Amino acid sequence: MSAVVTESPETTETTKPGLREGAFGNATALSCRECGHQVDLGPFYACPECFGPLEIAYDFPKVTREEIEAGPRNIWRYKALLPVPSDIETSPNTEPGFTRLLKADNLGRELGIANLWVKDDTTNPTNSFKDRVVACALSAARELGAKVFACPSTGNLANAVAAAGARAGIKTVVFIPSNLEHAKQVNSAIFTDGLVAVDGNYDDVNKLASEIAGEEEGWAFVNVNVRPYYAEGSKTIGYEIAEQLGWRLPDQVVIPVASGSQLTKVDKAFQELIKLGLVEDKPYRIFGAQATGCGPVATAYKAGTDAIRPVKPDTIAKSLAIGNPADGIYVLDIARRTGGAVEEVTDDEIRAGIVLLARTEGIFAETAGGTTTAVTKKLVETGQLDPNLETVVVNTGHGLKTLDAIADQVGAAATIAPSYKAFKATGI
Amino acid sequence: MSAVVTESPETTETTKPGLREGAFGNATALSCRECGHQVDLGPFYACPECFGPLEIAYDFPKVTREEIEAGPRNIWRYKALLPVPSDIETSPNTEPGFTRLLKADNLGRELGIANLWVKDDTTNPTNSFKDRVVACALSAARELGAKVFACPSTGNLANAVAAAGARAGIKTVVFIPSNLEHAKQVNSAIFTDGLVAVDGNYDDVNKLASEIAGEEEGWAFVNVNVRPYYAEGSKTIGYEIAEQLGWRLPDQVVIPVASGSQLTKVDKAFQELIKLGLVEDKPYRIFGAQATGCGPVATAYKAGTDAIRPVKPDTIAKSLAIGNPADGIYVLDIARRTGGAVEEVTDDEIRAGIVLLARTEGIFAETAGGTTTAVTKKLVETGQLDPNLETVVVNTGHGLKTLDAIADQVGAAATIAPSYKAFKATGI
Repeated sequence: MSAVVTESPETTETTKPGLREGAFGNATALSCRECGHQVDLGPFYACPECFGPLEIAYDFPKVTREEIEAGPRNIWRYKALLPVPSDIETSPNTEPGFTRLLKADNLGRELGIANLWVKDDTTNPTNSFKDRVVACALSAARELGAKVFACPSTGNLANAVAAAGARAGIKTVVFIPSNLEHAKQVNSAIFTDGLVAVDGNYDDVNKLASEIAGEEEGWAFVNVNVRPYYAEGSKTIGYEIAEQLGWRLPDQVVIPVASGSQLTKVDKAFQELIKLGLVEDKPYRIFGAQATGCGPVATAYKAGTDAIRPVKPDTIAKSLAIGNPADGIYVLDIARRTGGAVEEVTDDEIRAGIVLLARTEGIFAETAGGTTTAVTKKLVETGQLDPNLETVVVNTGHGLKTLDAIADQVGAAATIAPSYKAFKATGI
Repeated sequence: MSAVVTESPETTETTKPGLREGAFGNATALSCRECGHQVDLGPFYACPECFGPLEIAYDFPKVTREEIEAGPRNIWRYKALLPVPSDIETSPNTEPGFTRLLKADNLGRELGIANLWVKDDTTNPTNSFKDRVVACALSAARELGAKVFACPSTGNLANAVAAAGARAGIKTVVFIPSNLEHAKQVNSAIFTDGLVAVDGNYDDVNKLASEIAGEEEGWAFVNVNVRPYYAEGSKTIGYEIAEQLGWRLPDQVVIPVASGSQLTKVDKAFQELIKLGLVEDKPYRIFGAQATGCGPVATAYKAGTDAIRPVKPDTIAKSLAIGNPADGIYVLDIARRTGGAVEEVTDDEIRAGIVLLARTEGIFAETAGGTTTAVTKKLVETGQLDPNLETVVVNTGHGLKTLDAIADQVGAAATIAPSYKAFKATGI
């Protein structure tokens, strides 16, 4: 991984020593979100000028709805808008995306929202939205010549990295806190010999990953040194919502906030679709959902400040438990700019949200989805979300992975002898 | 549910008292698989003449590839070939199907098969192929005016029925053996207040369900009294394989056998596609996969007999543990007619199959998928499957539901302190 950081912000070449032509599709450079400084495409994530986060800059060609619709039924239908080569479908990957957008009339009735949809990412290959971002990171790792595909994770990301690496035939090493639930460990270890349990919390695991990324040659840590490519995968949630609504933006979207990256990328996707003329320009509001036990962005939003005070997470929503969210400041900006909000709910509300979504729409969400559902309810009750506007709730992961959170809430209505008489006695 | 069994086998009317016109699409009657006797469409499953199984008869219109391709990205793209009304998409359902068909080059190399695919139903709404059959049963239940949507189940089916019923807003009651794993219970109870645990094995649960179906008015048991409609849903696996191969039949397909229904319906789907001119007529071989601990069809196949001797199941492949498979005789017929076979593998081979599929293709299968993978390996090794022919392996359900089967097989490679030095010491 020997691409060179240049001083030239004007570069639009995509062919660098060691990189094949079109390795990153229509991406042209890495651009600092803070100061606008540009560097060449490579395994970089922090601006050499100001240490701000780098993100992908593009020079998009004309893209039509018809071209997209003629593409594969996964995220690669949007390949022209992602930092991937034009032959991406030919490289083995898990083929994530194009998940269900379900009209949620039952849930809408319960919440008092007239026109409600659920974007359901539980049906992705490893049952969370992480398959989208990992597929983009895998492409970058491949093009950059990485030998190891890796991540620090609390669960979902490790599952996605281990599965994608197995299919791609690249060595994977995934780092998790050693106290992670056994089920989540199995769901990674089934795919890889490289599951490493670390005695420490997620912050410790994350720090170790950054250290290894700095010391080792040829390691692509999806959410560290190839993070700019990785993060672009979340845009596909926004693209799909728009396409599945019939090439139209919704009025309101509710998205869970961990690092905040996903929310910012859905906004980026909507902006790109408008710029490309693929949807009509119209106002939309973006809402962020957090758990009270880890709600630093919601706290800052309510305080009317930009200063996000890191917290020590204490919530059942472990996939949202990032106490110092890297993109929190941009989440605040987007929520305020679009007329949205960032709200938080308690663990009890999260559990109730999981049950509510399951009972009304037949979707079994993990704690993050329970958070988003419960926050949507609270946003209506507090008058922050307009129940008369078309609204999309994003469900990012599967309840089978966080069974413990809900296992004591639900169970058999009755246990009976195998007889009709015994059944009748239940009154069911 | 008051449709009347008539004596007229010639009837082709689909409008009956209490049924709306086109309630079952292009279906015309229920036809006995044994004697050919036909009865009106209704909540019937056994021939009144000979007690043979009833299946759906159709009068198909001309159907084109283009019409199908323009349809929704779920099983309803094939609605013209299913016993459902033409407006089926407008009724709330889980929108299953059109799951991934993955080119499995890594697994192919391991097994010595040149051209191998995996049809992966783990990404269905409740993570098994049961969502397909339940969606068809739900439509029938709705059209027949059922008030309760029910099933006996060992797990996957209960999940699918409970979720589909929640979304459709119909009362669900699902019956399971009381010793079922807690995780599988939660995965149904999350969707319904009607989870009933029965002290007994699956046969006891099944008998109780038949008794209730006979006694109660307005209960649609998906796999009992609306079974003919339900079973048709499995045809969509066959349709999708052909369409995803570019409107072409594969040379060989390996399918797990529980009741045997799915295997017979994939064959039916291929035959229909040929008859409709949607694919070229060509020979194909269908192989059945069973567990040694419940392999009555494989035993009969090897003995060269049609007499299937019921067994008492003893295998980790619980979703395949039907000791007296209703469609076993038809499975034998199809395997022999097409030049396929029915093979069995031990529980250890099943576990190895789960790991092999995960490590090569990033797919986490339940025990049924481990069975199919392991049987495919054995079929090559024993010369029954031609490794030079294009082959599709069907993976029907998700490993997250049968974690116990594999949990002691895989785990963390190392547990370390959060330091680079500790990591280097692992040698990973």
